Amino acid sequence: MDWQAAISGAAARVADHVRRTPVATLRFGARTVRFKFEQMQHTGSFKARGAFNTLLQAEVPQAGIVAASGGNHGAAVACAAAALGHRARIYVPRIAGPAKIALIRAQGADLQVVPGAYAEAAERAAEWQAATGAMQVHPYDAEATVAGQGTVMAEWEDQGLDADTVLIAVGGGGLIAGALGWLQGRRKVVAIEPETACALHAALAAGAPVDVEVSGIAANALGAKRIGDICFGLAQAQGVESVLVSDTAIAEAQAMLWRETRQLVEPAGAAALAALLSGAYVPAEDERVAVLVCGGNVAPDPLDSV
Amino acid sequence: MDWQAAISGAAARVADHVRRTPVATLRFGARTVRFKFEQMQHTGSFKARGAFNTLLQAEVPQAGIVAASGGNHGAAVACAAAALGHRARIYVPRIAGPAKIALIRAQGADLQVVPGAYAEAAERAAEWQAATGAMQVHPYDAEATVAGQGTVMAEWEDQGLDADTVLIAVGGGGLIAGALGWLQGRRKVVAIEPETACALHAALAAGAPVDVEVSGIAANALGAKRIGDICFGLAQAQGVESVLVSDTAIAEAQAMLWRETRQLVEPAGAAALAALLSGAYVPAEDERVAVLVCGGNVAPDPLDSV
Repeated sequence: MDWQAAISGAAARVADHVRRTPVATLRFGARTVRFKFEQMQHTGSFKARGAFNTLLQAEVPQAGIVAASGGNHGAAVACAAAALGHRARIYVPRIAGPAKIALIRAQGADLQVVPGAYAEAAERAAEWQAATGAMQVHPYDAEATVAGQGTVMAEWEDQGLDADTVLIAVGGGGLIAGALGWLQGRRKVVAIEPETACALHAALAAGAPVDVEVSGIAANALGAKRIGDICFGLAQAQGVESVLVSDTAIAEAQAMLWRETRQLVEPAGAAALAALLSGAYVPAEDERVAVLVCGGNVAPDPLDSV
Repeated sequence: MDWQAAISGAAARVADHVRRTPVATLRFGARTVRFKFEQMQHTGSFKARGAFNTLLQAEVPQAGIVAASGGNHGAAVACAAAALGHRARIYVPRIAGPAKIALIRAQGADLQVVPGAYAEAAERAAEWQAATGAMQVHPYDAEATVAGQGTVMAEWEDQGLDADTVLIAVGGGGLIAGALGWLQGRRKVVAIEPETACALHAALAAGAPVDVEVSGIAANALGAKRIGDICFGLAQAQGVESVLVSDTAIAEAQAMLWRETRQLVEPAGAAALAALLSGAYVPAEDERVAVLVCGGNVAPDPLDSV
């Protein structure tokens, strides 16, 4: 698989549909951190890139699109489907929470809220696909998804990224797989997962993807039960460093992002920074570190109280 | 007064102390809008620029610094004073609200909460200055303040701003005065004020600064009773276009900024965008418009609910 070609193709394909999100180099206490604020993407996370890339190159059937999602992927698929004139049915587990559920509904999708967690939503989506012939958009383990997410890193380099190391939060692994596919070892990539939702960490330890239990404050975004095969293959081949962070560290990073930069993000969006601030990842003295802020769909919706 | 020289000097002076804030060009419905996210500045507004520029070129007396503020200026002065090793006493009216009051306290200042509105705080600050010899930092009507705020526009141009027109919210006028001083007519500047706090609009109509009543959702940031003389002089000489927006339009723009870009800002920070979204300012078809997002100190503190 030529990931660089696939990601370049995806970048050209999605250019008119996704945002070029801003970057900034900011002092954070004693550190200088290079940020990319990808939570400013359409529907509040990087997921719009993979969704648009998938739909733009697919022959979408009459039955439309179906997706299962902890929230962000569903919103992105619904947004892309609406923009491109397709019907979309999105299965979401109740743990996605009311803010993300409202966000998906606002995209105009046929929304199905499912009891339980992501796995139940995925089952229902597969049933719908089998029954209707709708096209399923996988949240992380499909080439078109990964190539779309890879456009984040391609864009960041085009914006002049001057970092030795990039910290990226990992759920099912679509985002980091795209980064690894694009970078091909040209920069160090560190995979950050919550201690309570660490499918990649467990897979690297076991030598193969394995099921894990997921919980914690970032579970609706990072709580994949099993790392995607594409991500695992790239991460293992490139010897990616895997780092875990506590929910406390994530919450502290989330608070710091608001206090220091007025960026209000969801826990998953603060996880990569948490590794740096908590000392879970300690860079060398002259190591230039970049942090990808990947999602901003915080709960509750802050507009409810302003 | 050679404002361009003063602003260039200020930019060099404050470079190690203030943030180069990010910019982005984003589609907003049918429009393309160039944004500068200055609410990501230290203490959440552009005010840090004027505060650092003032303190860095002053001989600060033993008695330290004193300022009166609706919130943002006080936080910025307290931050700059702490960074540069000076004592700071900040008078804040209760209408600043608990979030801004807590922000000032967090900078380590000697905080004095005053009943009433900004005018009472200003009186108390003047008394303290007279009694102790402390140095007062004016929030908008002093050359060092204006030159510091002017660095926003200098920086934006250095970041490649490609706009014919820049929309800027106006309170006492320090920010827009800096922009006018820097641009000297090279781009169109539009002054945006709330209908309920429109000191510049009233002054332009009267031909001189006049007292106005202030109220409304942006009053703690934009509610100057009288426009600064520096701002008035520049605005009158350059024939600045003055546009008013309703509180409803401001609240809608604030909601749109969150929904579309995950930027949670205070009402003053959304006022300039409100002019565009509400149709209070209607650009020509090919007019390239930029919006300065100037403050993010929203109330209540969103961390209280996440």
